[in-house]
Amino acid sequence: MSGLVAELESLAPTMAPDAVLTDPDRMAGYRWDRANDPTAGTPVAVVRVSSTEDVQAVVRLAARHRVPIVTRGAGTSLSGGSTAADGCVVISTERMRRIEVDPLTRTCRTEPGLFNAEVKAAAAAHGLWYPPDPSSFEICSIGGNIATNAGGLCCVKYGVTTDYVLGMTVVLADGTVVELGGPRIKDVAGLSLTKLFVGSEGTLGIVTEVVLRLLPAQRPPSTLVATFGSLTDATGAVCEMTRTMRPSMLEFMDQASINAVEDMTRMGLDRSAAALLVIQSDEPAEFALAELEAISEICSRYRASEVFHTDDPQEGEAFVAARRAAIPALERRGSLLLEDVGVPIPQLSDLVDGIAAISANRGVDIAVVAHAGDGNTHPLIVFDPSDTEQVERAQAAYGEVMELAIGLGGTITGEHGVGRLKKAWLPDQLGEEAMELNRRIKQALDPDGILNPGVIF
Amino acid sequence: MSGLVAELESLAPTMAPDAVLTDPDRMAGYRWDRANDPTAGTPVAVVRVSSTEDVQAVVRLAARHRVPIVTRGAGTSLSGGSTAADGCVVISTERMRRIEVDPLTRTCRTEPGLFNAEVKAAAAAHGLWYPPDPSSFEICSIGGNIATNAGGLCCVKYGVTTDYVLGMTVVLADGTVVELGGPRIKDVAGLSLTKLFVGSEGTLGIVTEVVLRLLPAQRPPSTLVATFGSLTDATGAVCEMTRTMRPSMLEFMDQASINAVEDMTRMGLDRSAAALLVIQSDEPAEFALAELEAISEICSRYRASEVFHTDDPQEGEAFVAARRAAIPALERRGSLLLEDVGVPIPQLSDLVDGIAAISANRGVDIAVVAHAGDGNTHPLIVFDPSDTEQVERAQAAYGEVMELAIGLGGTITGEHGVGRLKKAWLPDQLGEEAMELNRRIKQALDPDGILNPGVIF
Repeated sequence: MSGLVAELESLAPTMAPDAVLTDPDRMAGYRWDRANDPTAGTPVAVVRVSSTEDVQAVVRLAARHRVPIVTRGAGTSLSGGSTAADGCVVISTERMRRIEVDPLTRTCRTEPGLFNAEVKAAAAAHGLWYPPDPSSFEICSIGGNIATNAGGLCCVKYGVTTDYVLGMTVVLADGTVVELGGPRIKDVAGLSLTKLFVGSEGTLGIVTEVVLRLLPAQRPPSTLVATFGSLTDATGAVCEMTRTMRPSMLEFMDQASINAVEDMTRMGLDRSAAALLVIQSDEPAEFALAELEAISEICSRYRASEVFHTDDPQEGEAFVAARRAAIPALERRGSLLLEDVGVPIPQLSDLVDGIAAISANRGVDIAVVAHAGDGNTHPLIVFDPSDTEQVERAQAAYGEVMELAIGLGGTITGEHGVGRLKKAWLPDQLGEEAMELNRRIKQALDPDGILNPGVIF
Repeated sequence: MSGLVAELESLAPTMAPDAVLTDPDRMAGYRWDRANDPTAGTPVAVVRVSSTEDVQAVVRLAARHRVPIVTRGAGTSLSGGSTAADGCVVISTERMRRIEVDPLTRTCRTEPGLFNAEVKAAAAAHGLWYPPDPSSFEICSIGGNIATNAGGLCCVKYGVTTDYVLGMTVVLADGTVVELGGPRIKDVAGLSLTKLFVGSEGTLGIVTEVVLRLLPAQRPPSTLVATFGSLTDATGAVCEMTRTMRPSMLEFMDQASINAVEDMTRMGLDRSAAALLVIQSDEPAEFALAELEAISEICSRYRASEVFHTDDPQEGEAFVAARRAAIPALERRGSLLLEDVGVPIPQLSDLVDGIAAISANRGVDIAVVAHAGDGNTHPLIVFDPSDTEQVERAQAAYGEVMELAIGLGGTITGEHGVGRLKKAWLPDQLGEEAMELNRRIKQALDPDGILNPGVIF
């Protein structure tokens, strides 16, 4: 191991200044991500790479020593996908920040270290739009988005990260550099390997550059906010809407999240509502109006207590911001165990009811926000970390929510990734045959298992 | 081998009547696809499976005997993707025709044997839409579409097959049945294996069921047709349009295809035009008008000789049908070698010019139609199969067109697949590292190489 560190330090002069960190104090910030896994390990070194060549050099050394590599973007993983393993080398992509937008092909070529919001901004400077929008878009890296096949609020109409990845440069477990795809909307030459690496959570290779597809700028959306006296009415309305319409956003907050956000923002949300929906349409003006009127009619039919509509994008954004604020607002109430379960839309009501039952049964607060139009929910289990008995109940509830989702034909993770935290439940969802197929691919690409060990597998 | 045939025949009673064919006359129709590869082999048996269990039983036998398996949908491959190998078992999915549309999740679950048009029709019966639309949509199977990650005319706005595949049942090379994904828009649990099988051309597994994402019915499109006196003007206009707009169709025909179609249809196309664009917008009425007006303005700026606009969907469809008729129309003039090369949009002009140069240099006619908005072109090399010297020149041109595309940063196949016909050029496009990665995945999933041997690899 010390041999590896010495070799990494001898690489340092070929890299940008201060690239190789071995001081425990300086490495501390690279051990955890936002999942705060208490079992996080201690790396032997952190390398802040600046190029594909840097990554290749580090991977070659680590492979020779069979030392684990944990790749890290901005460290915002909510499932422990970028948590350090003991004795690993952390490859941090924070310095890989080049981006080049090509308006002619409506694509951009970007390195993994940029924040999602920076990719959006670079595209916007050319009148273009990169749709995927995790709630953490201002602080999460595009590399992490690729690793988890991240989603967000736009997915109900505009799909997820993989729908925008046309090509990439990836460093394999043995240090081989491979170029896949390119700025071509259609390309079926060879196997769909680009798509395989998207969502692989750093377990198959290290993505050092991506080609992303961009769209023309989104039209300013109109917004509708509706409150409901019952959860069933709210989820019923969602189900009715998604059958025939394509709103550009369809978000859900339950009473606990409404109140947490209201505590923080004092923006006048109805604390008595059982649920609130934030819905947007980005159709051209009159058509947005027509779409939201039809949606308003559905809300009324499902006994909405209040329906508010605005075509002022700023005013609409305030409600979207309220929805995004749910996680920070709930963090004020205690520690969070953050779920990411999804179900087919018609099962949304059963999922939300089932979560309420788990909450009552385990005696822990579970607030629910959701990308309702995708059936992707984020139950947020709030607990007091100093109360070990409560921690246990929270952890029991965490597993039960995933089991509930699996039982409803759903998924344990819609957009955050399996990471370290959810892998115990993965076989229950996938089944033995699909697990074995996952392992076969992993074995083929990383036979020594050095890439992000403990994640997924 | 004869042992295998006897065992297959002993399986027959467990299957629907007349499932196992071994009579050479009855098997003849299963040897070739639309690529008409003269090197097509002779199968030892054709099994017309009706279920996943049938496929599993056949694969287990074939695997035990290490006999190749060629899976066949409707046999419309243009690249030899469903051409029989000598001594193989052909698994024909023509009888696997169940489909179930679920309007609540806006998905359908379908077996591979349905035609693309039948999937569209089943969706339409519920007011829903399955977008991918290869020109052969009335005669190509959805299973073949999955195998090639098929595209079509809608892709410029609505993406390709993989964008609509949410899950599948797949039989692996050893007969293991695996369920992947499901009717969930977001699901990142485990590796993105569904996406890996899409476009794998029957070389990694046999897809026996898929879950497809559907959209609400498309709005009736408005259509604009423009003719140009020069190819460069036409491709320049395309490039200008795709920078800022999202037409729902953007198709190109050159003079040779215009004339071939006019010979067949007598619909009054301008025979003197160097190029014709067929463009559609499916925005809401006035916005379609505005979009097509802006496009019309671009056409004028690029010296269009004539611009015609209609919001009558029937009238518009006549021009789309003309574009689709190009291949049958050119087939009247001789045999065709059908290309599928794509380039980044700004290189479209260089590609079209380069093809003209190859045509002149080799003294063979090459007509070009294109899904211009994707940069995906179909140069059609017309030759007299009885003239061996001309056949050689046509074949030389076939390779040169692919080399041209690769040199322009493009692909040898945008939507038809590599098949048997293009695999010699695949390493030039992908490079040695990506080829090796393709082989590693193939080796992991089909170590004995029994699935569609001779295709891609």
